[in-house]
Amino acid sequence: MTDSAPSSAVAKKAVVLLSGGLDSATVLAMAHAAGYAVHALTVDYGQRHRAELTCARQLAQSLGVQEHKIVQIDLRALGGSALTAEVDVPFHRDDVQTEPRSTIPVTYVPARNTILLAIALGYAEVIAAFDLYIGVNAVDYSGYPDCRPEFVKQFAILANVATKAGVEGAGLFRIHAPLISWSKTRIIQEGMKLGVDYRWTLSCYQPDAQGRACGKCDSCHFRRKGFEEAGLPDPTHYQS
Amino acid sequence: MTDSAPSSAVAKKAVVLLSGGLDSATVLAMAHAAGYAVHALTVDYGQRHRAELTCARQLAQSLGVQEHKIVQIDLRALGGSALTAEVDVPFHRDDVQTEPRSTIPVTYVPARNTILLAIALGYAEVIAAFDLYIGVNAVDYSGYPDCRPEFVKQFAILANVATKAGVEGAGLFRIHAPLISWSKTRIIQEGMKLGVDYRWTLSCYQPDAQGRACGKCDSCHFRRKGFEEAGLPDPTHYQS
Repeated sequence: MTDSAPSSAVAKKAVVLLSGGLDSATVLAMAHAAGYAVHALTVDYGQRHRAELTCARQLAQSLGVQEHKIVQIDLRALGGSALTAEVDVPFHRDDVQTEPRSTIPVTYVPARNTILLAIALGYAEVIAAFDLYIGVNAVDYSGYPDCRPEFVKQFAILANVATKAGVEGAGLFRIHAPLISWSKTRIIQEGMKLGVDYRWTLSCYQPDAQGRACGKCDSCHFRRKGFEEAGLPDPTHYQS
Repeated sequence: MTDSAPSSAVAKKAVVLLSGGLDSATVLAMAHAAGYAVHALTVDYGQRHRAELTCARQLAQSLGVQEHKIVQIDLRALGGSALTAEVDVPFHRDDVQTEPRSTIPVTYVPARNTILLAIALGYAEVIAAFDLYIGVNAVDYSGYPDCRPEFVKQFAILANVATKAGVEGAGLFRIHAPLISWSKTRIIQEGMKLGVDYRWTLSCYQPDAQGRACGKCDSCHFRRKGFEEAGLPDPTHYQS
């Protein structure tokens, strides 16, 4: 697999989970640069930051995907997270940045990445793709259990016993998490190289109605720091 | 854990996936009989056999669950199955009954049980339950990869690295699939003993608008045979 994109007639398909955030936008560009015919999948799970969905559509279009599916699932029915329920999103605090964190923040959505990858696996089976990309990151992150390498590794094992492919041997599923050990700075540098327009990404957990970032949550903190350390202008639209 | 139900103040919680079919109804009664405070979860994934949802509501009520959540996810957006798309459901054929089957039938919904268990895992985390029940069966079944013991085992491993529990050690997730090696006859006998009213279960892949079974698909075949071999009257409402 080289950096030059082969013709779409022969390109292997990849399913890329695209939230509309900075990480998944970068991963989408990386899968494209690796020569895959990219099938983007956005899961609308009732997140409070719905402006992400607008970003996802724009990114899919500008990065030239083969197809962009949006699947609705109403995780608000389950509750349990500040991202889907009426719970306040906390401001970022430097004193809870140390790794490993002793508690999981309220912005954790229970089993979210398991659910996202499960849906991506279903999509992959339908289109006969065996490569799944997810933009999880275990460095400049909020301490979620389903962003760790152990999780990604176990999901790949599961995928190969859960599916037709596992029974019929049509192929071997691979979960690509290329950002998992990267700093936010390195992610941004790579994305800029690949032409990602970060104006069309939204990282904030609680943007306003115009899709502008709060500048105060964990996610805003890591994003801002990433642009600063990369020495690049931060294209984020902040509320103030 | 004994057969007598402890008071609900001390009972451990279990999340039971309840489709409204014969198997999941039986599993619900088994979890209840084992003393769990049962939280039923029905996933409305755009299945063609929507009469199942009516059955699920009725069963949850009659079997006395603590709570019954219904989560919507539109898997029709992905296609790829006769159960969610406009593809004909085939009649049962005795010549493709042998195990292991060489091909997966068109009624297979890609990654369905992975998606269902992932949502159940999210629900379990929210309510602090560690026991998940699913009515998969690898004997009188349609040859789906995600009904096999290997799948259930791997999902349990994943659950324990994917969640807060895996990181914080609050508990150990267990996936209960008590029917996995049972014949349909044994399932029905057990359910009858526990008071399951099978009139309120629907197994057919393509019931009519009144919720009556076709009597011709794989699922109808295995169900009818189960009642016959158990020597019990079949309460199913057939179309003819």
